Amino acid sequence: MNADYRSFYRGRAVMITGGLGFIGSNLARGLVALGADVLLVDSLIPDYGGNLFNIDGIADRVRVNIADVRQQSTMNYLVRDRDVIFNLAGQVSHIDSMRDPYTDLEINCRSQLTVLEACRNYNPKVKVVFAGTRQVYGRPDRLPVDETHLVRPTDVNGINKAAGEYYHLVYNNVFGIRACSLRLTNVYGPRQLIRHNRQGFIGWFIRLAIENKPIQIYGDGSQLRDFVYVDDAADAFLRAGASDDCNGDVFNVGGDRPISHRDLTTLLVDVAGSGTVQYVDWPPDKKAIDIGSFYADSTRFTRTTGWTPATSLANGLRQTIAFYRQHGAHYLAESGGGPA
Amino acid sequence: MNADYRSFYRGRAVMITGGLGFIGSNLARGLVALGADVLLVDSLIPDYGGNLFNIDGIADRVRVNIADVRQQSTMNYLVRDRDVIFNLAGQVSHIDSMRDPYTDLEINCRSQLTVLEACRNYNPKVKVVFAGTRQVYGRPDRLPVDETHLVRPTDVNGINKAAGEYYHLVYNNVFGIRACSLRLTNVYGPRQLIRHNRQGFIGWFIRLAIENKPIQIYGDGSQLRDFVYVDDAADAFLRAGASDDCNGDVFNVGGDRPISHRDLTTLLVDVAGSGTVQYVDWPPDKKAIDIGSFYADSTRFTRTTGWTPATSLANGLRQTIAFYRQHGAHYLAESGGGPA
Repeated sequence: MNADYRSFYRGRAVMITGGLGFIGSNLARGLVALGADVLLVDSLIPDYGGNLFNIDGIADRVRVNIADVRQQSTMNYLVRDRDVIFNLAGQVSHIDSMRDPYTDLEINCRSQLTVLEACRNYNPKVKVVFAGTRQVYGRPDRLPVDETHLVRPTDVNGINKAAGEYYHLVYNNVFGIRACSLRLTNVYGPRQLIRHNRQGFIGWFIRLAIENKPIQIYGDGSQLRDFVYVDDAADAFLRAGASDDCNGDVFNVGGDRPISHRDLTTLLVDVAGSGTVQYVDWPPDKKAIDIGSFYADSTRFTRTTGWTPATSLANGLRQTIAFYRQHGAHYLAESGGGPA
Repeated sequence: MNADYRSFYRGRAVMITGGLGFIGSNLARGLVALGADVLLVDSLIPDYGGNLFNIDGIADRVRVNIADVRQQSTMNYLVRDRDVIFNLAGQVSHIDSMRDPYTDLEINCRSQLTVLEACRNYNPKVKVVFAGTRQVYGRPDRLPVDETHLVRPTDVNGINKAAGEYYHLVYNNVFGIRACSLRLTNVYGPRQLIRHNRQGFIGWFIRLAIENKPIQIYGDGSQLRDFVYVDDAADAFLRAGASDDCNGDVFNVGGDRPISHRDLTTLLVDVAGSGTVQYVDWPPDKKAIDIGSFYADSTRFTRTTGWTPATSLANGLRQTIAFYRQHGAHYLAESGGGPA
């Protein structure tokens, strides 16, 4: 149905907010390869994930504009003449959102209004694909979780991401700004921030394995998660951006099968040839906010766009570890400023 | 189970945000009658519904503090030593939220963080009851709508109200600030803003009937709604505020039975003895955002607190019309400043 979604991007003017971040920069690489005119917008706020090294090798084929998505007049200008906006900018730390809920509100919620108002007033024909998150579901009532599951976030970050997503749907339905949201589960791969442990556990586990350190598992490690390799996540964005069948809807984008923390870490240590796994009791404060097992049903997105994840977890981990072993200096050091 | 929820309030220190507004002021009257120590916080922003006449007759038995719930240091001070906060302040116009989404965000979303952060830091033992809305459900998948229905707002106001509600649940679950939300359907009664038509149709219909003007119904008027008389809504807040069984949850608070627009307006004109009903074609822009029939299932709240609506629609309309006929000068004139 979208056999030629890749050719759709030849010469197409696209913008990626959070374009120097983990998923944004990998998506940018894909778009450059497809011949798109790529504008990357990123604020490079320390600790958020933006990293100029992420575009190493494509820097001369993209345009980088350092800007904050919260800044209305800047966004009004930048959205003009873009065909597709991949709206990935955000603050992704749950922990930070509970310490400083206002900043999370500004970056994950208010900023989406800034982008959408810019589109409404200066580029109403644009297509917007929003990076949503499985976090909006909270602790699942049933597994796997499909899009009919209640939205019931368990932290401020999840709430603000939910609100940001809803704005996209309302602007699609009321103002005709074509938009959809991809609710990503656990994305991993090269170019993820692994300098601190506040942006999800998978990148941090990979770092510990590479550094031959113990990886701590709470409890028996039986809780299940699904994982998406970043190239597969980028492919999901490409398909959604090219398909008007996605407009006005939300889609889970998850891994092809769930795996327990126990099996994940065993595989990781095996693939890396380094690191160890250590089982410890649940810290009470972590147990209190644990959501148990979670894995997504991505059938709706597969049916709508033909997307399926192509990279096995073993292969994805292998490529990720090889990347960080080669380029670790750009991801492990205190390169970005700010507290680790 | 809450037979003595009314005696719970004797001498109890309570605060009502939006306390000079429609529901807030009616709730204040109830609390004064029960012997509570009542602090009303209201910004009196023109056009939002706050009206000093709303506390006519109880003004000497409440404390009024004009303040904006968005102002952190003020809220930090005001929440201290309160036992219960009824958190009703907000901007309720869907239309205004689509014209100026940022103000709606500030008032309905960010302000909830202000209140909750004040409680977390200065009064963590307080109980908070949030005024939610059936709007968060959007266009229903099924009828009646219970709390397991998806949250899928159709306008910016609904999104921000949903986010504000989620904050309360997260602060309950993570920080132990006891909180719950009442998702009110269509509340009507004395002291509602009827000076302009941007705060819901029921108050506006009542005004038109009183002024012996035509009430316009779009289409055939077959769409169903449920209505709650404001005294019943206030009783719901009293019960929720006194019950820890409500903590961390959301509850529909709706009318006892649905009624069509056709039957509602027929009844209204009959009770008022004035006004006429006029059927007109759906304006395309209104049809596009119409949610069809909606009525709520309030079983969860009834089961938890024993609440049921006590006032029939005919009686409620009769009392409402009598109130406005007597006090119309305070509600119909250009009293509040700002555009009508």
